[in-house]
Amino acid sequence: MTQNRRGAAKAAAKSSAHHKVSPLAPKRFARLPPLAGVELAAGEAGVRYKHRTDVMLAIFAPGTKVAGVFTKSKAASAPVEWCKACLPRGSARALVVNSGNANAFTGRAGLKGTGDVAVAAVSAVGCDADEVYLASTGVIGEPLPAEKITKVLGSLKAAAHPNRWREAAEAIMTTDTYPKLSRATAKLGGKAVQINGICKGSGMIAPDMATMLAFVVTDAKLPAKVLQELLSDGVKPSFNSITVDSDTSTSDTLLLFATGQAGNKPVRSASDPSLRDFKKKLNEVLLDMALQVVRDGEGAGKLITVNVQGAEDDAAAKKVALSIANSPLVKTAIAGNDANWGRVVMAVGKSGEAADRDRLRIWFGKQLVADKGERALGYNEDKATKEVSKLEVEITVDLRLGKGKATVWTCDLTHGYIDINGSYRS
Amino acid sequence: MTQNRRGAAKAAAKSSAHHKVSPLAPKRFARLPPLAGVELAAGEAGVRYKHRTDVMLAIFAPGTKVAGVFTKSKAASAPVEWCKACLPRGSARALVVNSGNANAFTGRAGLKGTGDVAVAAVSAVGCDADEVYLASTGVIGEPLPAEKITKVLGSLKAAAHPNRWREAAEAIMTTDTYPKLSRATAKLGGKAVQINGICKGSGMIAPDMATMLAFVVTDAKLPAKVLQELLSDGVKPSFNSITVDSDTSTSDTLLLFATGQAGNKPVRSASDPSLRDFKKKLNEVLLDMALQVVRDGEGAGKLITVNVQGAEDDAAAKKVALSIANSPLVKTAIAGNDANWGRVVMAVGKSGEAADRDRLRIWFGKQLVADKGERALGYNEDKATKEVSKLEVEITVDLRLGKGKATVWTCDLTHGYIDINGSYRS
Repeated sequence: MTQNRRGAAKAAAKSSAHHKVSPLAPKRFARLPPLAGVELAAGEAGVRYKHRTDVMLAIFAPGTKVAGVFTKSKAASAPVEWCKACLPRGSARALVVNSGNANAFTGRAGLKGTGDVAVAAVSAVGCDADEVYLASTGVIGEPLPAEKITKVLGSLKAAAHPNRWREAAEAIMTTDTYPKLSRATAKLGGKAVQINGICKGSGMIAPDMATMLAFVVTDAKLPAKVLQELLSDGVKPSFNSITVDSDTSTSDTLLLFATGQAGNKPVRSASDPSLRDFKKKLNEVLLDMALQVVRDGEGAGKLITVNVQGAEDDAAAKKVALSIANSPLVKTAIAGNDANWGRVVMAVGKSGEAADRDRLRIWFGKQLVADKGERALGYNEDKATKEVSKLEVEITVDLRLGKGKATVWTCDLTHGYIDINGSYRS
Repeated sequence: MTQNRRGAAKAAAKSSAHHKVSPLAPKRFARLPPLAGVELAAGEAGVRYKHRTDVMLAIFAPGTKVAGVFTKSKAASAPVEWCKACLPRGSARALVVNSGNANAFTGRAGLKGTGDVAVAAVSAVGCDADEVYLASTGVIGEPLPAEKITKVLGSLKAAAHPNRWREAAEAIMTTDTYPKLSRATAKLGGKAVQINGICKGSGMIAPDMATMLAFVVTDAKLPAKVLQELLSDGVKPSFNSITVDSDTSTSDTLLLFATGQAGNKPVRSASDPSLRDFKKKLNEVLLDMALQVVRDGEGAGKLITVNVQGAEDDAAAKKVALSIANSPLVKTAIAGNDANWGRVVMAVGKSGEAADRDRLRIWFGKQLVADKGERALGYNEDKATKEVSKLEVEITVDLRLGKGKATVWTCDLTHGYIDINGSYRS
């Protein structure tokens, strides 16, 4: 049975207090089946929120491998530093995630906090400290009340169950208005392998990394080095191609775990042809999760897809696309159903990439609105307005200079964003 | 007699339709005295707005020299291209500025529009075409109705008067809620010389160039080359150190005219020591105007000063300061009176510049809120909240790595910005 929108609303009301569910929320949430080699549990530690779950534990079977990508922030959180320090071993047995407190910019107290939680996980799960992965999301700069988390880990261990994906996704929400889940099945080395993912947004979303927290688990048997290569490639057209507000979190974390229980034939290299279907499905899960984050961007009323083609190269195309997607003037125009393509011109112009005003073409949806440096012949304001009044708006820019192209996704900028962020801590 | 705030409100209501005057508006507007060698006039051309002035003409005495800096946008407007083409001659006799239509991304029609207006100015004023300077501000992408402007130039020429600075400043407003004027007197080569400036904002404000349109006139006698050097230097710590929304306009134009009527001794080089006071006063006028633009940023409720010190160098300091000043999360927190210094940490971290989390210090006003990688000892939430609840908020960051420093100015991000920009064209 799949959950319907009403279910989403209820879950969100329960988990995330007062914010209305995004109008862009998926109609139905993916229902994640059990995946061999991982059990999960969620609980109420009371880190900051009341009357909702705020901590999750995942326990992995011995032999689980792990890969990760993290924020490029120079002020990364204590849990990000912890994970980076553990990653060289490439082995994972536990993942502990809390919401309500990011344990970022908390100095030595923050490091002690991660240590305390890890030690508690070691004793609950029975593994080494560098097999414990940690993530925290929420307010920056307040000391993490680690003891609230450590004292529930024992009962979470006892409650852990293969069928708790939804609960885990709900426990890590902050200003998210719905839990984010995705799944796929892939063929790999003679077996069908599963991929399950959960993640959370929804402010401080900008490339490198875009997501705040995302966790993907597969039962495939893959070495840590191969996992890392697949993840580093897969993050580019997904999490690193979305933006909500151009602000980069101190805590962005994407971890990929492989429990190795599927019994597929060994794979030694990321370029092994047997990985073709797995790569495709993994990337689909990553993109699905990334788009769920954008659809739940703070205050989002519309999903905006920005396609740029004809750039000098793909990197230039992405820079132009991000310049459009991060422009407050473009985002407010779309929020206001205003077919203000002049602001798209402005955003192209400010990107710093090569652009010839007199070659530029711009479409809203299928409506050509600008052509060769001026308003398109046959421009129809009503039709253009109709395109930008949709729940999902597509902006396409052809620079007509080369073959570079990129697609990025963002949401509009609304009163909701101001509401949420003018009072996040209160 | 100086104008009071009520005068500002009335002027704004007249000129700029429905937006309330910024709470950050100057209490009194500078009253600009006549300046030898320039006469001005404002009129109603009906380019887009009704019942307000929307075009201004300035007529300069023969021998007037000119310098300019312009947007770095790759999609610059037709008037920007026109001015750039005229600048090598360095001589100015007329300036025509309209509001309501930016004549940007208007293709060949746009170039024809600038040509038509210039030809009309040539015949009204009696000068060469490359002594006519043009600027347009307003909607992008719609053909300029040049004939509406050309047909009023004759009567503007007849009405031109040395005492029309305020009227000129009002005619160039778009979403500005008050006219922007600034003045100074400087000693130069044995004479007192005047500097008068007018400008307008107030969206699409980001460095390189920050302002949309600013015009400064002095009666000093200075060669065009010297003027250009003074202007290019002066723009860095003023207009290129402000940001409202990180969006760079297609039309940003700053022109500096010198009528040469003051009778000062000749100056041949920008490094001439006799220029010391003039440089100082010119830079004060530029900064005053730039701050007036920020104080009238769309939806602005607060002026935010961001000081960064201890960076590796000044350029790094400026990048960090702009990262803070452009962060929607920092700007919404300040709007909400939320002493959320964690978001300042985030913005430092995402700037890409060298920063050591464990050395960082952050102040709100005089309150030290973060020190050495964590919340400051003796942190007092009430005092910090009081600092960010002020109309003028100061954020200071010490990276404690080197001697680089920079100050930039911005405003908060409020519902007003969304209101204005979700319906700008309607």
